[in-house]
Amino acid sequence: MSKGITPQSQNYASWYTDVVKQAGLADYGPVKGTMVIRPYGFILWENIKEPLDRMIKETGHVNAYFPLLIPKSFFSKEAEHIKGFAKECAVVTHTRLKIDDEGEIIVDPESKLEEEVIIRPTSETVIWSMYKKWIQSYRDLPVLINQWVNIVRWEMRTRLFLRTSEFLWQEGHTAHATAEEAEEETLKILGLYKKLAEEFLAIPVLTGLKSESEKFAGAEQTYCIEAMMRDKRALQAGTSHNLGQNFSRAFNVTFQNRDNQEELVFATSWGVSTRLVGAVIMAHGDDKGLRLPPKIAPYQVVMVPISRDESGCLKVRKFISPVLDEMRAKGVRIYEDWSDNTPGFKFNEWEMKGVPLRLEVGPRDIEGGKAVLVRRDTGEKIILEKNVLTEQIPLLLEEIQKGLFDQALAFRQKNTHTVSSYSNFKDIIENKGGFIRCGWDGTQKTEMKIKEDTKATIRCILYKEDPSEMRCVYSGNSAKHVVIYGKAY
Amino acid sequence: MSKGITPQSQNYASWYTDVVKQAGLADYGPVKGTMVIRPYGFILWENIKEPLDRMIKETGHVNAYFPLLIPKSFFSKEAEHIKGFAKECAVVTHTRLKIDDEGEIIVDPESKLEEEVIIRPTSETVIWSMYKKWIQSYRDLPVLINQWVNIVRWEMRTRLFLRTSEFLWQEGHTAHATAEEAEEETLKILGLYKKLAEEFLAIPVLTGLKSESEKFAGAEQTYCIEAMMRDKRALQAGTSHNLGQNFSRAFNVTFQNRDNQEELVFATSWGVSTRLVGAVIMAHGDDKGLRLPPKIAPYQVVMVPISRDESGCLKVRKFISPVLDEMRAKGVRIYEDWSDNTPGFKFNEWEMKGVPLRLEVGPRDIEGGKAVLVRRDTGEKIILEKNVLTEQIPLLLEEIQKGLFDQALAFRQKNTHTVSSYSNFKDIIENKGGFIRCGWDGTQKTEMKIKEDTKATIRCILYKEDPSEMRCVYSGNSAKHVVIYGKAY
Repeated sequence: MSKGITPQSQNYASWYTDVVKQAGLADYGPVKGTMVIRPYGFILWENIKEPLDRMIKETGHVNAYFPLLIPKSFFSKEAEHIKGFAKECAVVTHTRLKIDDEGEIIVDPESKLEEEVIIRPTSETVIWSMYKKWIQSYRDLPVLINQWVNIVRWEMRTRLFLRTSEFLWQEGHTAHATAEEAEEETLKILGLYKKLAEEFLAIPVLTGLKSESEKFAGAEQTYCIEAMMRDKRALQAGTSHNLGQNFSRAFNVTFQNRDNQEELVFATSWGVSTRLVGAVIMAHGDDKGLRLPPKIAPYQVVMVPISRDESGCLKVRKFISPVLDEMRAKGVRIYEDWSDNTPGFKFNEWEMKGVPLRLEVGPRDIEGGKAVLVRRDTGEKIILEKNVLTEQIPLLLEEIQKGLFDQALAFRQKNTHTVSSYSNFKDIIENKGGFIRCGWDGTQKTEMKIKEDTKATIRCILYKEDPSEMRCVYSGNSAKHVVIYGKAY
Repeated sequence: MSKGITPQSQNYASWYTDVVKQAGLADYGPVKGTMVIRPYGFILWENIKEPLDRMIKETGHVNAYFPLLIPKSFFSKEAEHIKGFAKECAVVTHTRLKIDDEGEIIVDPESKLEEEVIIRPTSETVIWSMYKKWIQSYRDLPVLINQWVNIVRWEMRTRLFLRTSEFLWQEGHTAHATAEEAEEETLKILGLYKKLAEEFLAIPVLTGLKSESEKFAGAEQTYCIEAMMRDKRALQAGTSHNLGQNFSRAFNVTFQNRDNQEELVFATSWGVSTRLVGAVIMAHGDDKGLRLPPKIAPYQVVMVPISRDESGCLKVRKFISPVLDEMRAKGVRIYEDWSDNTPGFKFNEWEMKGVPLRLEVGPRDIEGGKAVLVRRDTGEKIILEKNVLTEQIPLLLEEIQKGLFDQALAFRQKNTHTVSSYSNFKDIIENKGGFIRCGWDGTQKTEMKIKEDTKATIRCILYKEDPSEMRCVYSGNSAKHVVIYGKAY
């Protein structure tokens, strides 16, 4: 198990892979680029899903399920959309296997489909083909639907959780009577995503707009949340798109408005994915492994008995069980490690797995009526009277939740540089890393040139910030936008 | 909306389709045989998932996620398995689309895969390929994993929820050190499925074994729960398979036992699907539409104001809102229908949608400090004092839950016939319908002959019942098993 983890400073990518594998989060599947999410990783995903699903429902949305398979012809209906996804589509062409004369299993050529079908790389097309049936009048609007599903995009270079040929996500698809309402919805969801990231994942995020070249294929506007990882790279952690009337036009979805006129429906779509698990790993992890925010940690507390013989364990159990029961009743998620590994092994193991709080109980603690707590976020050791544990542990978990957020925020702030000269820009990107806040003249030419030079891209346009005092970091022309630049996953 | 539902007695299949469509449960998707689960249907599925997921976790299982895509070669590893699924596999052969010279979107021939991949029709093969990596020693056992995923089996004749090319399900896949433990697991899950069906879906089920010809492709034994629908046909509602060492042999998954010997692992797999939604519709529905068991109903109570003018509605709201708030706090799911349709329209609408309890409040009720309740299961009208509503409504919901179960049980009992002569058997199958309890000599010949004659199949072997006093209903030889025969979905 504990094979040692490559230090972050030595090779961040290897560190990441080591942690994912050794903590039992995920594995590659047999088909290239597919992912097996192992139980420990999946509980993490469930604990991310749960609060987001609740927020989605509390804001009036409902869940549904649309088919995995989409007719090829649907992709031709929205020109930008097909350009965005054509190169990574898994195509189903046949529907049967058979055993040939030599006993080999082959695809039955007679089962060839008349029209090939595509595994959804995203569901706008299939959903808008259904909305056409369901929407006739303004009374049918808004439609506020979300689904939790799997997605396939055939990727060549993959990394677990961050970029895989199949991933899990939620995708919301809403239909509205007015452009204003669609914009409001887009921003409302952006707010939910920010709340999810900051309050549950303890990851501070910047919110902003994507540039034309980075926005979703088929959207008018793409809003995003962007986070900084501990290697100072950016990770896009969620996107919310205002689709305008692009998909309603493509699928001819009109409604009769209050004035009895036919109008095209306005749309949004938005999603976050299992990529968020990767964000949690990289925003908080250190050389010992994961550091999980208590709100989403599979286990919030691990109890390690400092005793390996049977009578010692019995004493520990007698001493601590009532406390653990009481905490469980309060909703604290606890794992008791009674395995016959040494305490030292267990410490490493559970630190690697990122459990926020370790509770140690040994003979001396029992004698003194105390227990030792060790925080995963700071390494701090705290000795507490047994009778205050039930009260103090939930408070400590809150502190750890906040502590991780504060550390990540301080890290991002320290590594975000407001820059006005291009040489400074290049120096930071090449030598220091981090986010650059600067002016951009709004031209694609500038954007492309900077990307060519440095591989850095506009992570988001800080659309609320006033660019009037700034100049473009590259062209020196007056800035149209204040933007965040960085290298991205 | 309310286009009228075909009466069950006139055409049961049309009744079913009418209810599914008009209640907004599901629709066909654009690719043949695929299904769109609409929000009202999806909440029903979520309410079925929730208690089952809880039970699965309470019995020590954990959720995970295995890939959608499986290499074709995996299917050749277990001979029975490939036979069972070869004819309904969606095969992915290419990974890109492109635009050809005429501007048409085509599958890029250069993106052809070296080895075709299959969309999972079930996940034994991909999961056992991973278990091979994860299992080395008896210390790694048992592995108790479940996943909630989508499945594709290319079906020619489809019916929403019952048989579609794509459906949703959970599939558990466990690995054990001994045959006994695997058998115990198989039966434990069968018990959970029975509990789910009876206590939550209010559907009484028979539990039994499948015959060789009906068992899962690759299993040693398939246990099942079988339910009777209101057209007296059988619906297989869940299966739990003891896979023996078939898949561990196919994927060479061995473990070192306590005596340091290499042994093949023992396996089980088990699943229930969105088919259960079909079971709920057909086990309880009547000519007015759905009748939903309160425990899984999206809304348990619908409040219909018997007043259409604004001031009347205001009075209703003032009168009933505190009661509704109190009930919501108790966890009762309530819908308030303030739309401007007539009360009569609303009654029909919500009866069709199967809401267990209707709460009517009009001016006269307010005057008398009362409200009217109407039970969907019996049609019974109950007038209650306002101040007892919060207490009585949850009790009424419990009664309705029990009432639906009792009705379904009485219906099954009335339509289950113990039969010893084949002419009687045929007469019942042809003219009356229902389940037949009889002796079977255990031969495939008998089984096939009866199927040819009558289309009835062995729904399950009542393996706990003693056949020694019975003769085979067909051959007259001494019976090897007591079985349940019926026509099935």
